[in-house]
Amino acid sequence: MSSTAGKVIRCRAAVAWEAGKPLVIEEVEVAPPQAMEVRIKIVFTSLCHTDVYFWEAKGQTPVFPRIFGHEAGGIVESVGEGVTDLAPGDHVLPVFTGECKECAHCKSEESNMCNLLRINTDRGVMLHDGKSRFSINGKPIYHFVGTSTFSEYTVVHVGCLAKINPLAPLDKVCVLSCGISTGLGATLNVAKPPKGSTVAVFGLGAVGLAAAEGARIAGASRIIGVDLISSRFEEAKKFGVTEFVNPKEHNKPAQEVLAEMTDGGVDRSIECTGNVDAMISAFECVHDGWGVAVLVGVPHKDAVFKTHPINLLNERTLKGTFFGNYKPRSDLPSVVEMYMNKELELEKFITHTVPFSEINKAFEYMLSAKGLRCIIRMDE
Amino acid sequence: MSSTAGKVIRCRAAVAWEAGKPLVIEEVEVAPPQAMEVRIKIVFTSLCHTDVYFWEAKGQTPVFPRIFGHEAGGIVESVGEGVTDLAPGDHVLPVFTGECKECAHCKSEESNMCNLLRINTDRGVMLHDGKSRFSINGKPIYHFVGTSTFSEYTVVHVGCLAKINPLAPLDKVCVLSCGISTGLGATLNVAKPPKGSTVAVFGLGAVGLAAAEGARIAGASRIIGVDLISSRFEEAKKFGVTEFVNPKEHNKPAQEVLAEMTDGGVDRSIECTGNVDAMISAFECVHDGWGVAVLVGVPHKDAVFKTHPINLLNERTLKGTFFGNYKPRSDLPSVVEMYMNKELELEKFITHTVPFSEINKAFEYMLSAKGLRCIIRMDE
Repeated sequence: MSSTAGKVIRCRAAVAWEAGKPLVIEEVEVAPPQAMEVRIKIVFTSLCHTDVYFWEAKGQTPVFPRIFGHEAGGIVESVGEGVTDLAPGDHVLPVFTGECKECAHCKSEESNMCNLLRINTDRGVMLHDGKSRFSINGKPIYHFVGTSTFSEYTVVHVGCLAKINPLAPLDKVCVLSCGISTGLGATLNVAKPPKGSTVAVFGLGAVGLAAAEGARIAGASRIIGVDLISSRFEEAKKFGVTEFVNPKEHNKPAQEVLAEMTDGGVDRSIECTGNVDAMISAFECVHDGWGVAVLVGVPHKDAVFKTHPINLLNERTLKGTFFGNYKPRSDLPSVVEMYMNKELELEKFITHTVPFSEINKAFEYMLSAKGLRCIIRMDE
Repeated sequence: MSSTAGKVIRCRAAVAWEAGKPLVIEEVEVAPPQAMEVRIKIVFTSLCHTDVYFWEAKGQTPVFPRIFGHEAGGIVESVGEGVTDLAPGDHVLPVFTGECKECAHCKSEESNMCNLLRINTDRGVMLHDGKSRFSINGKPIYHFVGTSTFSEYTVVHVGCLAKINPLAPLDKVCVLSCGISTGLGATLNVAKPPKGSTVAVFGLGAVGLAAAEGARIAGASRIIGVDLISSRFEEAKKFGVTEFVNPKEHNKPAQEVLAEMTDGGVDRSIECTGNVDAMISAFECVHDGWGVAVLVGVPHKDAVFKTHPINLLNERTLKGTFFGNYKPRSDLPSVVEMYMNKELELEKFITHTVPFSEINKAFEYMLSAKGLRCIIRMDE
């Protein structure tokens, strides 16, 4: 039992007071974990587009003041009532969606969309009592997707924590909390390209490159990157991308360009942009008879996916995935082991690091599309 | 070797001289089979919607005079050069689509959309020489989808013939040539409902009832039929349908009605109408996390399938199938065995029989939506 167990912890957190304004490092109070909750010390965190999207708060319910952050690696400080799976000292990855292990989704072999702990971007409080565990001078600071990892300590539902190998370096595996697993799992768990197959990846950001990394691991013979920014191809080669298509450089739809390159279509495609036209191209570029397209990118709320039904009847499959179909607690530990066994290369996703005191720099990198992942060192 | 091998056979055929006009029983000349072709004696044939659709010739290229028919059971009379898989006396089911066993589709474990022999509704001649094997007074009568089973003898590419158990009664298993296998395979090969699951079937015609039969065989616990004609429920019960929804009797979309009946959605749905709104309902009524929707019905050429991409991202799968994903030569013999083993019940699909001389009655039954399958006895 740590000496802080059961007590309020005062620590530093990066608070978003208003939409789109730089975060401010503040001293916050972090209440002890309640039933089925765990308080963890965050050691490393990284910044994901989803943090930026909700920080900008364009078109969603704004919840402020709030502590963002959902990609991280941490160590359990103390556990609340009823928590038996985790103990102080355990290394964990917090995840923005959870696994209660009791609901129909958790009991399904296929789904990871837990009824209890499925992502909720509007909720800023804990499930147990509808209250925040963060406060400044008694005033609540809201949570974000149940993780709020831009704080030296945070409180997370036990169902949103993956217990991992304590030998795994948290400054590397922290990126598995969200984007990298999302892209990797989209390929390995959902698209499942057979060895030697041809895979198209739409969007060569971190998620798309993780999808390509999955195709590389699966033994795809050709991995065709599709992106509106041609300069991304060079870096993408590190992730196994062998060919490149910039739709802007062609006077026909990307699906036709890809079909011509591949004698009728790719075996698998993975859409990681969220743009609905890219989704349609990603679907229509797969080969009839056996092609599978997987949608990963989150669309605009008014987006409409349209296609002629004959594209389906010609034996194409269209699927979507959420967090790469990984069940956070059951499956993430094995993804960490893939890294430990050197099958999965995480270093190439990490292009920047900054001390916690300079967390706003991570936002600048992302807003200017510099690099892939920026690791934030909490002890500086 | 039969005494007719290598010679022209004169026999009766039902010729469609013009779109939509009653067929006329004529004496036709059937030329001997050329390379990779087989001449077969048709013993029983049945009428399928696709025959009627192309006979009406609304909106497609009209090819007349033509001999329709593509669901049948026959016996090999003679074989052309290069045919080694079949010999005179073999019992066969002709199929409107084929399996060359050489192309990428035939070599794929998943596809049955053979490059060489895939259905072609516009072609009225044989592949080998671009000519018809049927004639009257030297003038060609055109083929239909490579089968033209409304003739006592017909010539078919060897790749479009499934060799079946000679003990199987051809007056029953002839219905496996098209519609029944299409619906059955959509369920068993594509939707693959787990035992105990909930399945919705849209459209309770012969194909939809065959899909329901597949769900019954798979051990589905609930099979919900969806049709605009409520009286179809009674007969559908014989095929395992346990519940019924008539979308016209509800003031909300069918997908919402089904989701309410099933605590969030069905596990599998199979769309057998070809109506694009039914396709959308069939997709949106499956449960998030694991639901799979399979499209079977052939849509209007201008139809557009539309859905919000979030329905996919919530881990639903949308697939289409062609001929139930059965490879004609490799897979149909085992479907015949399912019937022989009494797993699959074919008798209940057969609601009428007529002698060949009264083939136009079969068209009348179908046009007035009477019954499911009408068997045409060629020897009468």
